[in-house]
Amino acid sequence: MKAKIGVVCIMAIYLMLSPLNWALAKLSAPLNFDPSHAALVILHYQNDIVHPKGKIAKSYAERIAKARNVEHTKAVLEACRKKGIPVIHVRFALRKGAPEISQKPGPLFSAFTKIGCLVDGTWGAEIIDELKPIDGEPVVTHASTNGFWGTDLDIILHAKGVRDVMLAGIATARYVVLATTLAASDRQYYPIVLRDCCNDASDELHKWIIDNVLSYIAVISDSKEILSRLNN
Amino acid sequence: MKAKIGVVCIMAIYLMLSPLNWALAKLSAPLNFDPSHAALVILHYQNDIVHPKGKIAKSYAERIAKARNVEHTKAVLEACRKKGIPVIHVRFALRKGAPEISQKPGPLFSAFTKIGCLVDGTWGAEIIDELKPIDGEPVVTHASTNGFWGTDLDIILHAKGVRDVMLAGIATARYVVLATTLAASDRQYYPIVLRDCCNDASDELHKWIIDNVLSYIAVISDSKEILSRLNN
Amino acid sequence: MKAKIGVVCIMAIYLMLSPLNWALAKLSAPLNFDPSHAALVILHYQNDIVHPKGKIAKSYAERIAKARNVEHTKAVLEACRKKGIPVIHVRFALRKGAPEISQKPGPLFSAFTKIGCLVDGTWGAEIIDELKPIDGEPVVTHASTNGFWGTDLDIILHAKGVRDVMLAGIATARYVVLATTLAASDRQYYPIVLRDCCNDASDELHKWIIDNVLSYIAVISDSKEILSRLNN
Amino acid sequence: MKAKIGVVCIMAIYLMLSPLNWALAKLSAPLNFDPSHAALVILHYQNDIVHPKGKIAKSYAERIAKARNVEHTKAVLEACRKKGIPVIHVRFALRKGAPEISQKPGPLFSAFTKIGCLVDGTWGAEIIDELKPIDGEPVVTHASTNGFWGTDLDIILHAKGVRDVMLAGIATARYVVLATTLAASDRQYYPIVLRDCCNDASDELHKWIIDNVLSYIAVISDSKEILSRLNN
Repeated sequence: MKAKIGVVCIMAIYLMLSPLNWALAKLSAPLNFDPSHAALVILHYQNDIVHPKGKIAKSYAERIAKARNVEHTKAVLEACRKKGIPVIHVRFALRKGAPEISQKPGPLFSAFTKIGCLVDGTWGAEIIDELKPIDGEPVVTHASTNGFWGTDLDIILHAKGVRDVMLAGIATARYVVLATTLAASDRQYYPIVLRDCCNDASDELHKWIIDNVLSYIAVISDSKEILSRLNN
Repeated sequence: MKAKIGVVCIMAIYLMLSPLNWALAKLSAPLNFDPSHAALVILHYQNDIVHPKGKIAKSYAERIAKARNVEHTKAVLEACRKKGIPVIHVRFALRKGAPEISQKPGPLFSAFTKIGCLVDGTWGAEIIDELKPIDGEPVVTHASTNGFWGTDLDIILHAKGVRDVMLAGIATARYVVLATTLAASDRQYYPIVLRDCCNDASDELHKWIIDNVLSYIAVISDSKEILSRLNN
Repeated sequence: MKAKIGVVCIMAIYLMLSPLNWALAKLSAPLNFDPSHAALVILHYQNDIVHPKGKIAKSYAERIAKARNVEHTKAVLEACRKKGIPVIHVRFALRKGAPEISQKPGPLFSAFTKIGCLVDGTWGAEIIDELKPIDGEPVVTHASTNGFWGTDLDIILHAKGVRDVMLAGIATARYVVLATTLAASDRQYYPIVLRDCCNDASDELHKWIIDNVLSYIAVISDSKEILSRLNN
Repeated sequence: MKAKIGVVCIMAIYLMLSPLNWALAKLSAPLNFDPSHAALVILHYQNDIVHPKGKIAKSYAERIAKARNVEHTKAVLEACRKKGIPVIHVRFALRKGAPEISQKPGPLFSAFTKIGCLVDGTWGAEIIDELKPIDGEPVVTHASTNGFWGTDLDIILHAKGVRDVMLAGIATARYVVLATTLAASDRQYYPIVLRDCCNDASDELHKWIIDNVLSYIAVISDSKEILSRLNN
């Protein structure tokens, strides 16, 4: 504890005295968690992405199983339910015919319409059984990379007086965790990325984006740390 | 030309027949540029970030000089001016006292307020001389990672009937090019990242984010390609 | 035609010479309709609002029947379908438990939760049979007064290259037509309010808001005028 | 006090038992003000609108003087400054050349560009001397009817943990008070319209919109009531 204060003081002095690369700031971001103003946002844990039989799950399903991401997310989900912390689920889904996609789409949306994945009303667009929403947990649906975009996620968080936003989802770098964390930061929430509740198509994709991008706009935590805070 | 059609057909057949990783889609994204519905958006080319004497420029100034990013951006800027293509400038600036920043900020905004960089009204927050806006070029100002957020960039692009958005800016991965490209994609624009008009604190940061993230939601181009399209 | 040019010239001279109340501008707003960049947005024609057995329909149902608003809206809807003009349906719906509503709600949302109307999944929140969406017509759902807010309406219109937005809905002043028209105007769409496809709890509410507020930010038209344009 | 509880109980029973017009809800909206989560938002008190020499002030200046709106607003402003309640100023301003306005504008924006009022950088777009912002009071600038649209007003309010938003501005019905109150309500703020700090081009415009539209989505208060709450 004393050592921690020491480090923080040295950091603070360094920050005040030197014209520095703000990049260093990430060192000064331990978790400052307030469960009474927190919410858990679970992103894109849907069959087409996560389930072995999902249409674009080939890149993810095995890796998710191995990393036990569903189990970690479920543990946090259950702790939040027990403590009365709001849980919001974000689904990606295209309406039939994909009216949300421009007639001159960029590469991602172009691929989605070709593959025909994540169509609203199909099994593939449903949230996986393990993390099924229960009564009272809002589900928001969008056709974008950012959970806030095209949805009422901000309205719901605002209505509940949320400041700390815990993020769990697939995938980390491409795109929902990345884009939603950026958006949460830009809206002046306090974003907390749950590292072991996220994954991507490779170790590199998952780790690089956390270490080089997300850790500068969010606090990086994990299910273990959150569970220990919630159980105290 | 024939070869190109052949490749596209094979891609199309492959896409229709196989349950594939959408990741492949980036292969099918050559530049499909329409100058009559295009705009150039120049992001965060400001003294504090880019000028050797800027407060957080230590990470960027030398690299930018070496890569000639300002020159490349200026060449596109001048071509756009000549052709009547709209140009919009995006500045990051905090008001004095940083009222835009939460009382419990994430790491990035926390660092900015400590460093005291990019304060509105100071030299550091001004756009560099080489890329100074001229009359009729809107400047939007925000305190976020995404050029659309907290600004009227979307209104301006919409008012002008823009679909193709060329993006040039500092920095690529952290954050403005990344965040603005994601937002442009989510708004169903057709984003075009000008690779040699962007840079970051390291080759890795710049290249990795383009190759692994941006190339799947945007077309990656450069000043040379755009200039050749505009001069035809 | 000559007379029209004369009037416009006199208006223009008057506008240039005199320090005037911009209010006069509404006189210079005849319908400038371009079906190739148009969409029809139908707002809140839902059972709880419009159907005689709806939970808050007491104020509206008889008046709507008398004014034949459903018939007028249906005529425009069918003409749009025939011409391939995009149609988007906007529903108001609260999730069970109303997580979208603040713990300290303003009067409107407070009343909605007390009444228990317009709950998603119930008959009352469904669009009336006469105007049922068909395949390919996007439905957006929100818990706000403004069809753009908390939805992907803007994304869809943007993706389809829409500029002219025809608005039909219940109710005119309180609130969806008013709030959505304001939002369309602020997003630089060209809003067209279809007067006989809208209504409110009294003649005064309906007429006053059109004459005093909507006619200054939108062109006021009706089903007859639109049908005659579409059938030419 | 007892009588008040009685009324509220009767209202509550009535609301539970009867299929009612939610319109009645306005009766149950006394001011529930929490200064520790409040902000004052002052809208469009600018020279071109309010000052006798302003370009579109002819409709407003005399009426504002007579109703002493500036004095009432100033009294609330000073009380907020004294109590440390955040104050945000909203200006309407068009950049030179009006790039924010569509090439096919609706009536309002069309009139503004013809008149040439409220151009950024001119005296007309400045906030009137009596209500000049002081250091630390953010000013947001937009070219829309709604103070939240195209600005970072929401970010600032969110960053400060604001829930109760007091609104003072010109004009009430056309448009900034109306549009900003709707937007505040849709974002789940608790909007408080300060009746004697707002005005419009006629008594009818001002009163009608408050009585028939704003009082159903906001609490209607005035400078006197707020001052008495702040001085206790």
